[in-house]
Amino acid sequence: MLFLNAKFIDLDLGENAVIVNEDDLKGTSYYPQDRVLIESHAGSVIGNIYSTKTMVQKGEVGMLVSELAEISISEGEEVKLRHAEKPESIPFIKKKMDGQVLNPHEIRTIIDEIVSKKLSNIELSAFVSSTYINGMNMDEIGEMTKRIAETGDMISWEKNLVVDIHSIGGVPGNKYALLSIPILAAAGITIPKTSSRAITSPAGTADVMEVLTNVELKEDEIKRIVKTTNGCLVWGGGVNLAPADDIIINVERPVSIDPQPQLLASVMAKKIATGIKYSVIDIPVGKGVKIKNEAEGAKLARKFIELGELLNIKVECVLTYGGQPLGRAIGPALEAKEAIEALQDPKNAPKSLIEKALSLAGILLELGGAAQIGEGQNLAWEILESGRALEKFNQIIIEQGGTPKKPEEIELGDYIEEIIAPIDGYVTDINNTGITNVVKEAGAPRDKKAGLLLNSKIGNKVKKGDVLYTIYSGSEERLVSAVNLARRVYPVKVEGMLIERISKF
Amino acid sequence: MLFLNAKFIDLDLGENAVIVNEDDLKGTSYYPQDRVLIESHAGSVIGNIYSTKTMVQKGEVGMLVSELAEISISEGEEVKLRHAEKPESIPFIKKKMDGQVLNPHEIRTIIDEIVSKKLSNIELSAFVSSTYINGMNMDEIGEMTKRIAETGDMISWEKNLVVDIHSIGGVPGNKYALLSIPILAAAGITIPKTSSRAITSPAGTADVMEVLTNVELKEDEIKRIVKTTNGCLVWGGGVNLAPADDIIINVERPVSIDPQPQLLASVMAKKIATGIKYSVIDIPVGKGVKIKNEAEGAKLARKFIELGELLNIKVECVLTYGGQPLGRAIGPALEAKEAIEALQDPKNAPKSLIEKALSLAGILLELGGAAQIGEGQNLAWEILESGRALEKFNQIIIEQGGTPKKPEEIELGDYIEEIIAPIDGYVTDINNTGITNVVKEAGAPRDKKAGLLLNSKIGNKVKKGDVLYTIYSGSEERLVSAVNLARRVYPVKVEGMLIERISKF
Repeated sequence: MLFLNAKFIDLDLGENAVIVNEDDLKGTSYYPQDRVLIESHAGSVIGNIYSTKTMVQKGEVGMLVSELAEISISEGEEVKLRHAEKPESIPFIKKKMDGQVLNPHEIRTIIDEIVSKKLSNIELSAFVSSTYINGMNMDEIGEMTKRIAETGDMISWEKNLVVDIHSIGGVPGNKYALLSIPILAAAGITIPKTSSRAITSPAGTADVMEVLTNVELKEDEIKRIVKTTNGCLVWGGGVNLAPADDIIINVERPVSIDPQPQLLASVMAKKIATGIKYSVIDIPVGKGVKIKNEAEGAKLARKFIELGELLNIKVECVLTYGGQPLGRAIGPALEAKEAIEALQDPKNAPKSLIEKALSLAGILLELGGAAQIGEGQNLAWEILESGRALEKFNQIIIEQGGTPKKPEEIELGDYIEEIIAPIDGYVTDINNTGITNVVKEAGAPRDKKAGLLLNSKIGNKVKKGDVLYTIYSGSEERLVSAVNLARRVYPVKVEGMLIERISKF
Repeated sequence: MLFLNAKFIDLDLGENAVIVNEDDLKGTSYYPQDRVLIESHAGSVIGNIYSTKTMVQKGEVGMLVSELAEISISEGEEVKLRHAEKPESIPFIKKKMDGQVLNPHEIRTIIDEIVSKKLSNIELSAFVSSTYINGMNMDEIGEMTKRIAETGDMISWEKNLVVDIHSIGGVPGNKYALLSIPILAAAGITIPKTSSRAITSPAGTADVMEVLTNVELKEDEIKRIVKTTNGCLVWGGGVNLAPADDIIINVERPVSIDPQPQLLASVMAKKIATGIKYSVIDIPVGKGVKIKNEAEGAKLARKFIELGELLNIKVECVLTYGGQPLGRAIGPALEAKEAIEALQDPKNAPKSLIEKALSLAGILLELGGAAQIGEGQNLAWEILESGRALEKFNQIIIEQGGTPKKPEEIELGDYIEEIIAPIDGYVTDINNTGITNVVKEAGAPRDKKAGLLLNSKIGNKVKKGDVLYTIYSGSEERLVSAVNLARRVYPVKVEGMLIERISKF
């Protein structure tokens, strides 16, 4: 056992750790990377040892500030370090690596130890890799989903008809929720929409909404707002919903894997935690998004529906066209502007945006009994066209703490470059990944004013010298860098009608 | 791009990292966990961003001292941070996760990026997990082995007959190399033996040897010693041999997996790097060791032989009995003592130790042409019994920088407890894992004086009150803790002849 005095270290390592002077480790049975239990008079925490020559002195132990929530100590106080048992889930992770099915106890243990940070990044990565490779059956996924929800806050509602729209993402410019949610709320349907910030995309719905109002709200504020307006558009991360999910995402991102069991559990756990009873899940299909073809999309849809049945959530899935950006605007401020313009003047808004917003809202209007079967989309259009959706949207903005803005009041990046068509021809392709990377290079999502506005979409005729799209950035350096990238990846492709000439000679 | 002034942080995180004040990240496109390229006027290094409020000030960047080998900077000097591309190996790791075969270029890229620390622990764990689950074919393993060897130092010898004995481990008390190596060296055979320190066992061969002499030697010292004495017994980690291997082991240990491709590559890469041409691989079989039965052992043996053919190393494998500890002594000092006693007076040494040492040495004596086929073991015995092996052992100790000791001069732990037979009966089982854990609890391998001496082995008759074994420790606290564990796990089992009575009633 080691007795050391706590020193607070303000460093976020993504896992629990203690930093010990290497002189204190010499001659002991404690090694770097060993898992130890750190005990104070009031509480304990488990962490991995990292060694230093100078960061902490002999006799001291560096404790990360993130750990202080779990162990109550004052700086300088003596704590005990002793060997901690391996996490209980290690043999269960090994079992999944060996291709076996995990029972409910095993799955709950893994999720509990993820949330309490008992698993290191190495161990967590082994778990995520093994579910990616060996998969999970529906019972395992159901158990995992429930536990991910249970280990965080759970919001409950007095009403039974609480609905949600969820997109599994991947389409740049996917701001339709800013139209669908107010349409549904205006029709009297309860829709407490939580969304994520961008992970790999240039703007999540929460990033777009944040241009207009506050999105970091506590559970009781969300309940009050939804009671007043029927809806909200907030950041899911502001509430402690399904915290295991965020921890798991951190190890998925580096290797760019998104195991289907985790994808299913991640989406549905947030539904349980927010008390959703009916959910429409939007599965974009196409080049440069997660799901490449309809067969794959249909398979995923069936799994969502089956999982919903296990969890008592009624799920309907829609496959949507994801082959190019939705609407013309990509990036937080530009998307917020485009959404408000569409709410004000839907007849002149991009057809792809309006159609997607209406069809998703329509399904829930029918499901919620506000419209007859087959009439949902028409009702959605009436609500949008009458200005009631805009009114509701502004009400939500105000309740969340913002002030409604006119489109022209939204600030865009001052550094602007227009990209020009090099030849006469047609836009034959818009590459989602290319667009995403250019917008991120321009500074999005951190720089909310960064973005890209498409002048033409696939199939449009353009003349040499026409503006194909405009890049915006809040920083000159980043604009240059985004323009350079755009010239390299050529995300909007223009070709003459004659694509290739094949001749005998 | 961020311009920050370097501050040296002496912390070993097992991966490259830079520590940045969170104020410097605000409003930029740089996030915690982002991979960045850090550039100075002379060199660059890739690392992941970790954020802090206070550990480094605004304008500073914490650089780990372990990174300073790769980037030449002075403290306070300005460095540039910019987004680094994902490691080139990420898609190759993904490919292995998807169950595909990797080509030589892909494997070399992964190993190169492991050695240059371009892969984070998360990414490395994903790679190791995927080779554990999906396996590798012999071409992949061969390529991996070669690259692991090539990325470190390579020792070459003027002689062609350079041999080695390697045990894949798992048997407590496995000190036979301290007998076999001097026997072979005394017969004129070149055997530059590198061994590991304990990873999960209470004592590696290097830990045992370190009780008697220096084991951390540089390449040129090893060459000089082997030239003088024909052999050595040094720590492989003292030379930069197959460095990828140590990095990989660090992510295998937490999840307790040892994927067979890594096991094969790890052993054989060290053979290539030390210039070995003939290798005998000892595969212990039994309860509580890696290989549980002979069929499994034979399968692994065939793979070693096949891999050896690919790599131009002649490999012979032996399956040995690993069902209980080898000899009576477990723990560095006790094992060193038992080995010297056996070299001095082999007739009174534990039969299991002598037999294993002779049979492994015998194979190499035959292979090396020093003995006729079938005569190797006899020659080994002659060399041992004549005292020539002891003389050679002492010569090696001196050349490595130590002073030969008599057995009684070896210091053992002052804190001692004898464990007594609770009943009359027979020792029916000695549990390797139990023994290992008790000895580690007593402080081994760090505490070299900690260990366990068996008075009885499987099949021995004991009387109630006889000493079954003695536990040694350098610390009173650890002795208590080891004794408590021993009483719980009961590693030496005594039963009456009547094991179970089965009756109709």
